Amino acid sequence: MKFSVKRWFQGAVGLASLLALAACGNLQNADLSGTETTASSNKSASYQITGSTDGTQYSALLANGKYKVSTSRGLTVDQNSNTFNTSSFEAGLTTISKSNFSPEKYAFQEGQHISRTTANSWLKRESANNEAGLNPKDNGSTDPDKRAPIYLQEILEQDYLQRTNNSYQTAGVAIGLGLNEIDYYQKVQYGATFKTTISQAEREKQGKAMAVKILARLRKKKELADVTIVFGLYKQAANDSLVGGTYFATAVSKSGTTISEWKTLNQENGVLPVVNNQKAVNDGDADSFGNFKTKIQAFFPNLSGVTAQTHYENGTLQGMKIKISTQFFGVNEIQSFTQYVDTAAKRYLPANIPIEITISSVEGMQSFLSRESGDKDFYTHVFSSY
Amino acid sequence: MKFSVKRWFQGAVGLASLLALAACGNLQNADLSGTETTASSNKSASYQITGSTDGTQYSALLANGKYKVSTSRGLTVDQNSNTFNTSSFEAGLTTISKSNFSPEKYAFQEGQHISRTTANSWLKRESANNEAGLNPKDNGSTDPDKRAPIYLQEILEQDYLQRTNNSYQTAGVAIGLGLNEIDYYQKVQYGATFKTTISQAEREKQGKAMAVKILARLRKKKELADVTIVFGLYKQAANDSLVGGTYFATAVSKSGTTISEWKTLNQENGVLPVVNNQKAVNDGDADSFGNFKTKIQAFFPNLSGVTAQTHYENGTLQGMKIKISTQFFGVNEIQSFTQYVDTAAKRYLPANIPIEITISSVEGMQSFLSRESGDKDFYTHVFSSY
Repeated sequence: MKFSVKRWFQGAVGLASLLALAACGNLQNADLSGTETTASSNKSASYQITGSTDGTQYSALLANGKYKVSTSRGLTVDQNSNTFNTSSFEAGLTTISKSNFSPEKYAFQEGQHISRTTANSWLKRESANNEAGLNPKDNGSTDPDKRAPIYLQEILEQDYLQRTNNSYQTAGVAIGLGLNEIDYYQKVQYGATFKTTISQAEREKQGKAMAVKILARLRKKKELADVTIVFGLYKQAANDSLVGGTYFATAVSKSGTTISEWKTLNQENGVLPVVNNQKAVNDGDADSFGNFKTKIQAFFPNLSGVTAQTHYENGTLQGMKIKISTQFFGVNEIQSFTQYVDTAAKRYLPANIPIEITISSVEGMQSFLSRESGDKDFYTHVFSSY
Repeated sequence: MKFSVKRWFQGAVGLASLLALAACGNLQNADLSGTETTASSNKSASYQITGSTDGTQYSALLANGKYKVSTSRGLTVDQNSNTFNTSSFEAGLTTISKSNFSPEKYAFQEGQHISRTTANSWLKRESANNEAGLNPKDNGSTDPDKRAPIYLQEILEQDYLQRTNNSYQTAGVAIGLGLNEIDYYQKVQYGATFKTTISQAEREKQGKAMAVKILARLRKKKELADVTIVFGLYKQAANDSLVGGTYFATAVSKSGTTISEWKTLNQENGVLPVVNNQKAVNDGDADSFGNFKTKIQAFFPNLSGVTAQTHYENGTLQGMKIKISTQFFGVNEIQSFTQYVDTAAKRYLPANIPIEITISSVEGMQSFLSRESGDKDFYTHVFSSY
C-alpha cells in the first residue's frame, strides 16, 4: 500500500495486495497444478507462491490462486509527483528489507496493516479534527520560509511473512516514509505554485520523530506487537528531477516502542549527461558514459537521445539505467544498432556494475541489453513480431 | 530499402543503409578504438563492423564509423498497411538469406542497388508512361472481380557483402516481393474502400513472373551480373490481421536470367486465442496457450489482455510471441507477476520452441521473458529506474 498526502482519493493505480507465503525455511517451488493444499485452520485458505526464489528476489504468495486486491485499492500517489520517486521509493524499501528478511525465508505481501483511512489521517496535517496527523499544524503563514511545510509526502508499508505450522503470519513489516526536499504549495486554491525547501537536517529530524510515533501506533496492533519493524527514510526528488530520490536513513525495531539506533545510508542518484553546469557525481563515470554516447551517436545520426540514470552508494557507482531513443524502425537496422551498442557498452561503460540499456522509438521498446553485477557480457534481446 | 506501391513520397521512416563488411572468411570483432584501417583503393573508406556475430545474426559494417543513410531515404511503406507485415516481410527475407549467405561469412547491408525512382516505377502499374511497371495495366473496370488488381505491394532489397582483398563487394542480393492477398482500392478518390481478393494460384503465378523480370533487370547492372540473387515471395496479411504475412516461395539464381526452380515454403501464422469461430492452426498448441492464459488471469484479475502470435513451418510450431497487457504499476507487483508468468509458462506452454513474452501497461513495457529454441528456462527482466 502506498499513500500520498495529496489526491489520495483519486483514480486507481492498481496498487495491490494480499500475497501470502509458502513453506517453512526455504520457499519451495510454486504449485500451479491445481492440487492445492488447504490449511487446517478455519480461516486459512490454500496457498501457492508466484514462483521459486533465486535468493535475490522475493516470492509472493497467492491465496486461493488469486492475487487479492487490497481493500485500500484506489489510493494513489500524487499524480503531479515525479514517477521516478514512485518507483524508487517502493524498490528501495524492498532492498532495505532484504537485509532484514531474507528472500529465501520470507515471502512478500503488500502492506495490509495500515488502512486507507488511517494512512489518510497520518498524511494530513495535525489539527483539531485530525489528531493523528503527522504533518505539522498549519501556522497560518504562506511565506515559503515561515510556513510549516508538509514534510511527509508518502507512506509505504510492505509485509514479510513466514509460515508457522499451518498458518501464514506477518513476521516483519517495513515502513517507508517519503519526505520532501521541496514542498510544493498554493497560497490560494488553483493558484500559482510556490516552494518551501526543507534542509536535510530538518528532514532527518522530522522523519525520525514520525517513525517513533508510527512505531508506537503499530505496536498497539496485536498482530504487530512483536514483529520486527524496519523503517526507511526517503528523500523525495524534486518534481522536475530526471531521477528518483534516495533513502538516507534506516532503523530496525525488534520490539518495543523506541528506536535505539539509526543507520545513515549514503546514497546518491545522478543523471548523465549533466546539464545546466551541474557537477557529475563522479567525473570518471561521466567520461565513460560520454565516450559511449559519442560513439553510438557517431554511428547513427538519427538518435533522439542517449541519457543515463546512475545510482551511487558511499560514493561508488552501483548501476546505470540507460535510455536510447531512436527514430528508425527497420528490423535489421535495430538488430545492427543493438549489436553495435553491445560492443560499445562493453568497451566504454564502467565494468562490474549492473547496467540496463533500453532502445525505444515513439512506438515502443525495440530492443534492450542488460548486464548483471559481475557479468562481463550483456544479454541482448530485439523485440519482434510474426 | 523498402518500397511500397502507395504513398511512396511520404515521411521518412528512417530506412537506412550502407553497412559494409569485415574480414575474409569469418567476421572479426568490431574495432571501435579509432585505429581504423583504410583500404588501399581510392574509393574505399575505413570499415568497422557493428559487433561480432554469433553465427545466427548478421554483423553489419560501418563505413567511416557511420551508419550511412540510404539515398532513397524517405521512401516508406504504406501507412495504412499492417505494421506486422512491415516487420515480418523484412525479417523473413533475412531468414531466407541465411541459408544462402552464412552470417559467419557475409555481412549485411540494406539494399543499395534499386534506386528510389526505379522502385517507384516498378511498383506502379504498367502504362504508356511507365513501361517498367510490374503491376498490370488498368483495364478500366472497377468491379472487384473484373478489374486488374495491384498484385505487388512492396519490394525489399537486402545486400550481402564479402571482403575480397581490400574492397568490400556485394556477393549476394535478396529480393522480397510483397504480394497482396487482398488489394484495397477506391473507385473514386477519397471514396469508399473496396477489396479484390487474389487467389494463391494467381498470386504465385504473378509473383514468379515478376521475379523473372526483376532478375533480368538486375543482371544488366554490371555489379550484379554474377552475384547470387535470392527471391522470396511474401503473402501480405490483410490490413486487419493481428499477425503479419508469410513467405510462400523462394528461388536462387547463381547466374543468368532464368529461374530454374522454385521451392515452396509451407509457413503459416496464427493468433491465439482464436476469435470469430476461426480454427486454430493446431488445437494442441491452442489448448496449451489457453491453459496458460487461464492460469495467469486467475492469478491477477486486472489483466487487460493475453494474446499470442504463432508461427508454423510445415505444420510445426516454430515460436510464439505473447503480449500481456496489465493495469498495474507497482514495482513489486510487476516483479511478482513476472515470476508467476515464468512458472506458468514453463508448465503450460509448448516446450522446445522460442517464446517471447512481453508484459506492458499503457505506460510502456514493464517486464519481459524470453526462451530460446532448445532452452528450458526463461530469461526474465523487470524494467526499472532509479
